[in-house]
Amino acid sequence: MRAVAVIGIGDTRFGELWEHSLRDIGMQAGLSAVGDANIAGEQIEALYIGNMSSGSLIDQEHLGALVADYSGLAPLHLPAVRIEAANASGGMALHEGYIAVASGMHDIVMVAGAEKMTDVADDEIPAIQMTAGDQQWEGISGATMASLYAMMARRHMYEYGTTREQIASAVVKNHKNGSLNPVAQYQKAITMDTVIKSPMVADPLGLFDCAPISDGAAALILAPMEIAKKFTDKPVEIVSSFAATDTLALHHRESLTRLDAVVHASRRAYKRAGIEPKDIDVAEVHDAYSIGEIMNIEDLGFFEKGKGGPATLEGMTEINGVVSVNTSGGLKARGDPMGATGVAQAVEIVRQLRGEADRRQVSDAEYGLTLNVGGTGGTAVVHIFRRV
Amino acid sequence: MRAVAVIGIGDTRFGELWEHSLRDIGMQAGLSAVGDANIAGEQIEALYIGNMSSGSLIDQEHLGALVADYSGLAPLHLPAVRIEAANASGGMALHEGYIAVASGMHDIVMVAGAEKMTDVADDEIPAIQMTAGDQQWEGISGATMASLYAMMARRHMYEYGTTREQIASAVVKNHKNGSLNPVAQYQKAITMDTVIKSPMVADPLGLFDCAPISDGAAALILAPMEIAKKFTDKPVEIVSSFAATDTLALHHRESLTRLDAVVHASRRAYKRAGIEPKDIDVAEVHDAYSIGEIMNIEDLGFFEKGKGGPATLEGMTEINGVVSVNTSGGLKARGDPMGATGVAQAVEIVRQLRGEADRRQVSDAEYGLTLNVGGTGGTAVVHIFRRV
Repeated sequence: MRAVAVIGIGDTRFGELWEHSLRDIGMQAGLSAVGDANIAGEQIEALYIGNMSSGSLIDQEHLGALVADYSGLAPLHLPAVRIEAANASGGMALHEGYIAVASGMHDIVMVAGAEKMTDVADDEIPAIQMTAGDQQWEGISGATMASLYAMMARRHMYEYGTTREQIASAVVKNHKNGSLNPVAQYQKAITMDTVIKSPMVADPLGLFDCAPISDGAAALILAPMEIAKKFTDKPVEIVSSFAATDTLALHHRESLTRLDAVVHASRRAYKRAGIEPKDIDVAEVHDAYSIGEIMNIEDLGFFEKGKGGPATLEGMTEINGVVSVNTSGGLKARGDPMGATGVAQAVEIVRQLRGEADRRQVSDAEYGLTLNVGGTGGTAVVHIFRRV
Repeated sequence: MRAVAVIGIGDTRFGELWEHSLRDIGMQAGLSAVGDANIAGEQIEALYIGNMSSGSLIDQEHLGALVADYSGLAPLHLPAVRIEAANASGGMALHEGYIAVASGMHDIVMVAGAEKMTDVADDEIPAIQMTAGDQQWEGISGATMASLYAMMARRHMYEYGTTREQIASAVVKNHKNGSLNPVAQYQKAITMDTVIKSPMVADPLGLFDCAPISDGAAALILAPMEIAKKFTDKPVEIVSSFAATDTLALHHRESLTRLDAVVHASRRAYKRAGIEPKDIDVAEVHDAYSIGEIMNIEDLGFFEKGKGGPATLEGMTEINGVVSVNTSGGLKARGDPMGATGVAQAVEIVRQLRGEADRRQVSDAEYGLTLNVGGTGGTAVVHIFRRV
């Protein structure tokens, strides 16, 4: 298999984009990536579109052909496909696009993620989010994603003595980072008090522990490493791309406080890259719920199991900490348009490794990692990127 | 890229499977393929699941992890993903699974297609089917898939003098073939009169010109050609795997009677295989609507444009005709569980090339082809298979 590089990135601001449809934002992110890569649209050989629930959200499937069409690529008759792995759809689209280039099947591939969540009433969203869980066991019993993550949080507190303040400190950090990111949904720092006193959603998680409902899109242009320098002075190599799954239902797992899919995907990724967790300088992880970030940074091996909370409260995951986590603002502040999130994570890491992250730039970042999670950990997708 | 073979096949009967859930039928087809390939489930390295609309149909996304989980593969933490390209989801899942093996990323891969359509009321189905079209232009104006195909049929009649009887003859043939297929939804031959006098759906298409609402699943086990003989005496090689797209909306195309996505995908496929349309012995094509089969056999190059109708009426596409088309019964009689269809087409071609098609066996078949279409031609996926 060939080495693969990211040669172009593009995204929209995340938020409540009332004035734009899914096809608008998909096209906007795509065109921005094409411009960034300095290619003509006609050079694209295949499209991989990450999206979780467009059928339920906007009554539209067939997004591969749709995005090709509305990006003006219909005359090319190129292959285009939608990739779905719940909230990990974006990361999984990147995984499949990576394989397509690594295999030699295609040279220039666009990977995009897009989701339009604000075209349905807010109170329909929890049910749609639960389509990522095990409906026959969990949804039917009234579980919501927030309630499942709340159980993980309570158990984490019980097993490891993790405190409410430690969990909330991930949110405070992410809002601070988001305040430095011009494409974040929320660009405003908040206090610990705001998080802890926010209205309860599912004990112990409050409103500010949960990522928002968002519209948004992000896109990447991939190419074989061997020709990447023809397009850009700053190619970023994808040194590992791995996905793993687990039981869909939380109660079927051995542990409530460890996501085995994250452990497996990341161990394979480190092995392929020939590095260890401590070599990662900057990481975007899946803080759809605040406790998710605490567990992720443990399961990725950045910190020992049970030490994620204290590490976060002590600032070890702040920009230029031991490892800089969610410099974009994470899902909490950057926003979380479900199928777009995994691609947006990669866009942020590329910005960091290129040295283009402006006020939130991590010093001398060489290795970056993205972790995109579907449901409560039914799917995990890990990518490791390297500055060339 | 490595040569790829199909080493195992499995399927469920298609039909109204009231007593089975999507997870049941996905598991059943998968286990059947695992048995046929003589492998242990633990040898599977990745899963590709074709499904069009499980979010809308059964309120469940995340089918990659779901199928892995309910097939007992959760302890492997393998990568699993859902592939969606509307009605071409199954064919596209095979395309992505093929790339994964050809690339060297994985050795043993399962590709499955599954759809459960009978858990919603029948009258909700047309709207769900339209999510394959361009909702912003077509669905919003009240178009249904049947009405769009009806316009193609009327135009084909106008341009080429195609007759009602010619179109209906595809249905009569497919029901005859279905009567020979123990897994077909309808195993009953019908007369021309039954088709022509059936209740009108969208002029000129009647009830019998439209494929039914179906539940069902099908699965394939893929392996590199170089090790395929370790598992089976009768590996079938996938010599070409190509997908192409077109505008989602019918009215945006140059012609209403030619599916350019089919033309492009098939031309690439013939070129890669080093063969011509006349070399194909047996083909499964996309007769979701009867006129579809007439156009498909023209666009695939089996017959000149405008000659598909007469060729069908004259029996040239019957079993052991010039080319044997839809020996399984096609979508009309075999059934059409949307995301499962493309995989089921491949299962039938493998049965034919292995010489296991019993009473519907095509004599001495060497090359087989599948054509899976999404929407009105927004996506087309073509595979060419060869007896080894």
